Amino acid sequence: MSGNKQDHMRGLDLKRGRVEMSHGAGGRAMAQLIAGMFTAAFDNSYLATGNDGALLPRADGRLVMSCDSHVVSPLFFAGGDIGCLSVHGTINDVAMMGAKPLYLSASFILEEGFPLADLKRIVESMAGAARAAGVPIVTGDTKVVEQGKGDGVFITTTGVGVARDGVSLSGDLARPGDAILLSGPIGDHGMAVLSQRENLTFDAPIMSDTAALHGLVETMLDSGVKLRVLRDPTRGGLAATLNEVATQSGVGMMLQESAIPVNRPVEAACEFLGLDPLYVANEGKLIAICEPRDAQRLLYVMRAHPLARDAAVIGEVREDAHGFVQMVTRLGGRRIVDWLAGEQLPRIC
Amino acid sequence: MSGNKQDHMRGLDLKRGRVEMSHGAGGRAMAQLIAGMFTAAFDNSYLATGNDGALLPRADGRLVMSCDSHVVSPLFFAGGDIGCLSVHGTINDVAMMGAKPLYLSASFILEEGFPLADLKRIVESMAGAARAAGVPIVTGDTKVVEQGKGDGVFITTTGVGVARDGVSLSGDLARPGDAILLSGPIGDHGMAVLSQRENLTFDAPIMSDTAALHGLVETMLDSGVKLRVLRDPTRGGLAATLNEVATQSGVGMMLQESAIPVNRPVEAACEFLGLDPLYVANEGKLIAICEPRDAQRLLYVMRAHPLARDAAVIGEVREDAHGFVQMVTRLGGRRIVDWLAGEQLPRIC
Repeated sequence: MSGNKQDHMRGLDLKRGRVEMSHGAGGRAMAQLIAGMFTAAFDNSYLATGNDGALLPRADGRLVMSCDSHVVSPLFFAGGDIGCLSVHGTINDVAMMGAKPLYLSASFILEEGFPLADLKRIVESMAGAARAAGVPIVTGDTKVVEQGKGDGVFITTTGVGVARDGVSLSGDLARPGDAILLSGPIGDHGMAVLSQRENLTFDAPIMSDTAALHGLVETMLDSGVKLRVLRDPTRGGLAATLNEVATQSGVGMMLQESAIPVNRPVEAACEFLGLDPLYVANEGKLIAICEPRDAQRLLYVMRAHPLARDAAVIGEVREDAHGFVQMVTRLGGRRIVDWLAGEQLPRIC
Repeated sequence: MSGNKQDHMRGLDLKRGRVEMSHGAGGRAMAQLIAGMFTAAFDNSYLATGNDGALLPRADGRLVMSCDSHVVSPLFFAGGDIGCLSVHGTINDVAMMGAKPLYLSASFILEEGFPLADLKRIVESMAGAARAAGVPIVTGDTKVVEQGKGDGVFITTTGVGVARDGVSLSGDLARPGDAILLSGPIGDHGMAVLSQRENLTFDAPIMSDTAALHGLVETMLDSGVKLRVLRDPTRGGLAATLNEVATQSGVGMMLQESAIPVNRPVEAACEFLGLDPLYVANEGKLIAICEPRDAQRLLYVMRAHPLARDAAVIGEVREDAHGFVQMVTRLGGRRIVDWLAGEQLPRIC
């Protein structure tokens, strides 16, 4: 994040100001925005140097790198906003590789005219999420596009972490017989965003489950259970994620519908809107695939963590040349849980 | 870059197809786009695993991390396009920290309706630039926004590298007496983009100078010269970058206008449009600040490299409590080279 830290807060009206093209032009206005908004909120010594990049300590272990652009609409929703989401999303992708997330970069594409007060709220949410997770935002960038060429704020975060020695997790490691675990109820994030977008209200409010899962993953790895695959079922939901893993590993899967937790308000909202919670995005859940003999122990380990109290074994990996994900329904029938074919919920993350 | 590599090229019409909302929805269409477009072009074993992130070797040294969003308009211009620009820009930011760039992440925000053929051209330009630089794109993400909520393609890249032992470069290390060197003529990138945007033609075509500078930096570091600051003068041009450094270091600077190289067509175009080349963006140039006794040797080292054949000593660092960057003009007068106050050339990178 180029810019400098001295004396640049003057001229930034955080109450009534709006993003202007000059905030992305490399001059004084940009330096003011960076110092007054980003460097102030993210507050760490790496960022504060004001150089083109962050100089960081030596990392002890294999590196892991992951990135995500966030374009969620609306920007604010029950239980979160694009700010904390952009921190959690990338931390989780790093954690799913069996790694400890260490640093984040954050890059903003702002639309001309966006209120600085809203930007401040978003940036403070990011800063809070990063602080709570113990993963600092060490470098960044800001660009501004003309009104009508963006949509308020897009945020891209990249995470760097170190993989734990001896841990090897990958989507192509699922083997027939393996157990499939889910850390909790599905569909909360997607339905929270959709409710906000469509201005729907339900009897019970639906809150996004957005959360950083690296602590949960650390606990799971500490347990010594032999994990093969970790994934967070975001866009496309549980269905897309399991289909990805099935294809990567060249296996099938058999799920038990009755074992898949869904919160009652999400279930009701999905029924009302004709949506299938299996395809609805999550931002604070993970899928774990492990050797069958470890499944019960892993389940207890997960349930002991606050972010996986409702964890469940939801199915098992099967041999299947077609790579089908199938499900035994509550009524005892069978159905194929296919890839999401079209577009169910755009701009959910 | 989630998705998988098998059998997903079908259904992607790279000739006549357009980006659809489903390409960002996490389902089959997204997997097809990722496999048929990104994984195919970027072609490396880290990306090919299809996991949420890339698992990379241990890095031997202090890490450096830098990121940039690219929103240049138009997407294609003389001498480059948003694709190679997004690779060069981030490689250069890592290199300016005195580090060897090792890996890139790339995140795409696509506008619904954007031609897949244009996207392919951009992605292949990125792939070519990454290959030429020896810095693979190891992980990525793709989002799609509705028509009118984006502008074709935005690309955010993050780079990770390792800093050379014993090298310490920072914008706050310039000291009175230090020499200021520039690697070549200024303003080419900005004027190339502007000409394309405004449909201007000049007698001599102006080409962007976009280039990866890490090889040049390596040569400079190898020479053993004591470098204090390296910066690439992108947005806001030479003027903004020198003002940043002056503020960070708490020093002034005195430049010699006659020593600052500007290509004749750029000079003519700037005159015609009433622009000052000092404020026009560059994408393949660097500023180096070093101890005065090393200046001549550094100059020879730089001139021996193809990307800095026209390098010049353009001024020196001065003691100045106000942190002013000043310039002796060609006519022998003095002027202040201030920060860019407003917005000169929006969306230049």
